[in-house]
Amino acid sequence: MIRATSIQPLGWLLALSLAIIFPLSSTVADTVPRFSKATLEYAETIRLDAPENNHAMRILESLTTEVGPRLAGGPNDARAVAWAKAKFTGLGFDEVWLEPVTFPTWQRGIETAEVLSPYPQPLSITALGNSIATPAEGLSANIIEFATLADLEASTNAKVAGKIVFINKAMSAHIDGADYGPTVGARSRGASAAAKLGAVGLLIRSVGTDHNRLAHTGYNGYEDGVEKIPAAALSVPDAILLSNMLKRGKPVSVKMNLGSGPGPEYTSYNVIGQINAKKKTNKYVLIGGHLDSWDLGTGAIDDGAGCAVTMAAAEYIARKKLPIMHNIRVVLFANEEQGLFGGNQYRDAHKADVKNIIAAAESDFGQGPVYALNSRVKPEALPLVQQMQKAMSGLNIKAGHNNGNGGPDLIALGAEGVAMFGLALDGTDYFDLHHTANDTFDKVEAERLNQTATSFAMFAFLAANAPSSFGSGEPYLVEKAKQATH
Amino acid sequence: MIRATSIQPLGWLLALSLAIIFPLSSTVADTVPRFSKATLEYAETIRLDAPENNHAMRILESLTTEVGPRLAGGPNDARAVAWAKAKFTGLGFDEVWLEPVTFPTWQRGIETAEVLSPYPQPLSITALGNSIATPAEGLSANIIEFATLADLEASTNAKVAGKIVFINKAMSAHIDGADYGPTVGARSRGASAAAKLGAVGLLIRSVGTDHNRLAHTGYNGYEDGVEKIPAAALSVPDAILLSNMLKRGKPVSVKMNLGSGPGPEYTSYNVIGQINAKKKTNKYVLIGGHLDSWDLGTGAIDDGAGCAVTMAAAEYIARKKLPIMHNIRVVLFANEEQGLFGGNQYRDAHKADVKNIIAAAESDFGQGPVYALNSRVKPEALPLVQQMQKAMSGLNIKAGHNNGNGGPDLIALGAEGVAMFGLALDGTDYFDLHHTANDTFDKVEAERLNQTATSFAMFAFLAANAPSSFGSGEPYLVEKAKQATH
Repeated sequence: MIRATSIQPLGWLLALSLAIIFPLSSTVADTVPRFSKATLEYAETIRLDAPENNHAMRILESLTTEVGPRLAGGPNDARAVAWAKAKFTGLGFDEVWLEPVTFPTWQRGIETAEVLSPYPQPLSITALGNSIATPAEGLSANIIEFATLADLEASTNAKVAGKIVFINKAMSAHIDGADYGPTVGARSRGASAAAKLGAVGLLIRSVGTDHNRLAHTGYNGYEDGVEKIPAAALSVPDAILLSNMLKRGKPVSVKMNLGSGPGPEYTSYNVIGQINAKKKTNKYVLIGGHLDSWDLGTGAIDDGAGCAVTMAAAEYIARKKLPIMHNIRVVLFANEEQGLFGGNQYRDAHKADVKNIIAAAESDFGQGPVYALNSRVKPEALPLVQQMQKAMSGLNIKAGHNNGNGGPDLIALGAEGVAMFGLALDGTDYFDLHHTANDTFDKVEAERLNQTATSFAMFAFLAANAPSSFGSGEPYLVEKAKQATH
Repeated sequence: MIRATSIQPLGWLLALSLAIIFPLSSTVADTVPRFSKATLEYAETIRLDAPENNHAMRILESLTTEVGPRLAGGPNDARAVAWAKAKFTGLGFDEVWLEPVTFPTWQRGIETAEVLSPYPQPLSITALGNSIATPAEGLSANIIEFATLADLEASTNAKVAGKIVFINKAMSAHIDGADYGPTVGARSRGASAAAKLGAVGLLIRSVGTDHNRLAHTGYNGYEDGVEKIPAAALSVPDAILLSNMLKRGKPVSVKMNLGSGPGPEYTSYNVIGQINAKKKTNKYVLIGGHLDSWDLGTGAIDDGAGCAVTMAAAEYIARKKLPIMHNIRVVLFANEEQGLFGGNQYRDAHKADVKNIIAAAESDFGQGPVYALNSRVKPEALPLVQQMQKAMSGLNIKAGHNNGNGGPDLIALGAEGVAMFGLALDGTDYFDLHHTANDTFDKVEAERLNQTATSFAMFAFLAANAPSSFGSGEPYLVEKAKQATH
């Protein structure tokens, strides 16, 4: 995933108020929306069946083995689309289609670095996405280290000009990835911040929580009107090494070579599969992940896992012929990593009928398990969310807050006031692997992935049988989305 | 370390017999060798002082930061020798000298691989040491998988000819590295075994216990008279991926490119520092590690750790002016990884006076801690070993066996009947990092390394005050060495 504008928390205050105003007693049953007893019983069968269902693991193994890395617009993009279309069809989805998504591409080239003096040795780096190349003979300059992006921004041209900036911000592990936001700015905005002070290149400590000699890539955005400079990440051990060299007080000179740069415009596809309600309807629950990945690993946790769990969730409901009132649509978004192109295209193509989207939730934070159910629904629908969470509590899913972000590819739909659900995934170890060559299938644990797939199946099934609206397209949610994203 | 001929265990049987025949009571004091009370008290001060002593960490940080990778004969070999000489001198060793070691060299080049069909994607590999190059355009062939080297050896030319052999033997983690021996044959002998059946290349699953996308290098020996074929290791995730592809039943074609090959002959040095006893003597205790490493990491645990703990151990004894009867000699051996050249040279240069070596112990199994004291001494000296272990038991060091192997660089001296001590290091996680780019200083934990340095200091101090011989050069040990190595 990439991090979008963060949404300020408001908490369960509204829910609590409503629970007081509308206690769940039979005396006020008419005013409180309720799932039917049959729906809740079906949901429970999904939970109980979960241990027998290893389907998400099989889908993910297929994607990572048969396709592998899926850089948007790269050599495997078309094969990934073909795989997804064939997999939806093979899984028995009622409708399968593609929606085109066009974007500029970026290509990785060679990526090497070495300390030239005073302690010559190689450094392990990877180009940041969107980085330009160095000159073919490499870029050699002295290093200036900053602890954070803010420290760089507070520095001066006199100190920085002509140097390679090294931002050495370490990242700590949290269940919700809380330190990603404070750390990722060095990657997404560091190059332009450095260039403004005359730097010739950027090296950042990888935005990651591991100690492997595998650098973390990820998108680097160049600011308009600022000179573009080459940008790469050092693995965490290399950042520590370089910092230790600098502590000795002598100038440290580094040479970096990047062969990366822009490629031609490319058209890929959002790949969509839908399970239809028995009674024809245009209304649907949207779940999904993004089909593209970075190129270093096989995109198992980012975001093959999200594709697999949502495909498996919908397929399970269809295979078991569980009754649904609304369709369940699985969208595998194109090119999330380099700018949310698939999510934005989906919004553009479906803007007119966002009211048809009952609720939306993306899985893009690894293998799970899901530990909380967040939402962003109208206040009157909070009792439904409470009932959903209660139904899912047997999976160790706690109540969450009502300021949920459905996932990066749903930001655009969220801004249109679509009701969002955030199935909060345990990301404690997510940033050990995120955007590295280590993001491979062998890291995925069946028990965790199955719990996540089961959670999405329960969520999708319940939402597809919601007795009343969560508020998609209604004034309250439209206004709330505006507050959150502007 | 590399694994040498394994020495068959005999156990503490002899020690036990001796303990019965010569109980440690005052009535038979004359016949049982004993450390003096003062010596044991000094040894205890070493143990008590350990928590304050972070010296091995500082030495290791210096080596890995200021020199880094130390491939024998490679670009940093001379810098490593200069570092070691200067460090010994700076640490106040009484004598510092170099002894030349000449060997053929090997150079790593490009190393890439990819699945060509049916599921094109890159594979992460590293050339095995001593591997020849592929043709410049790469080597493309279908894969044939074997579970073990033995399975390959039992196969036929009809099945193997023209293919790239893939040996997919997994390795399990043990405190003493017990699964290294059963696994490493694929690396050390797999290429010639495959070539005998007409294979054109070898890919092995890395000899390692991790799941990182960092392949493990290590020495590959070509058998005389057998055609040499290119040989590389896949990272463990890549081996799993390739095996999963093969399970689908279609032919899997792989292209590998290696640019490695032989370089010119090179002369490096065993770097030696000695702390002298107050009263001049030729007798000495030998401790040490090997100064060379593989080139992918900075050789922190293999074997910077061994160099650091033995340098720190001897330096501690000198700095504290602890009284010693025999000299303490720290030998940092040249080119262990590619054929024990430094150890063999040392034997050749010092063969005539092995009786001067009171006892020898190498540290070459990572950062520790030390958990047992093994030995290979004459039976009459076992009470001394028992007293040493008892003195070290406060470091959680258990009694071991009397079939110890002092370390790979001491095999040659062991064959001459030098008394050996094996300070058994906890290697449970050693093969996560061994011979990979991940072998870097950030993996080293101060508490573990300090315990190891303290153990070596206690061992060296006690051995340097041994009241009688451990048997170096005496008929019993010479005969025992012959049994073990022939």
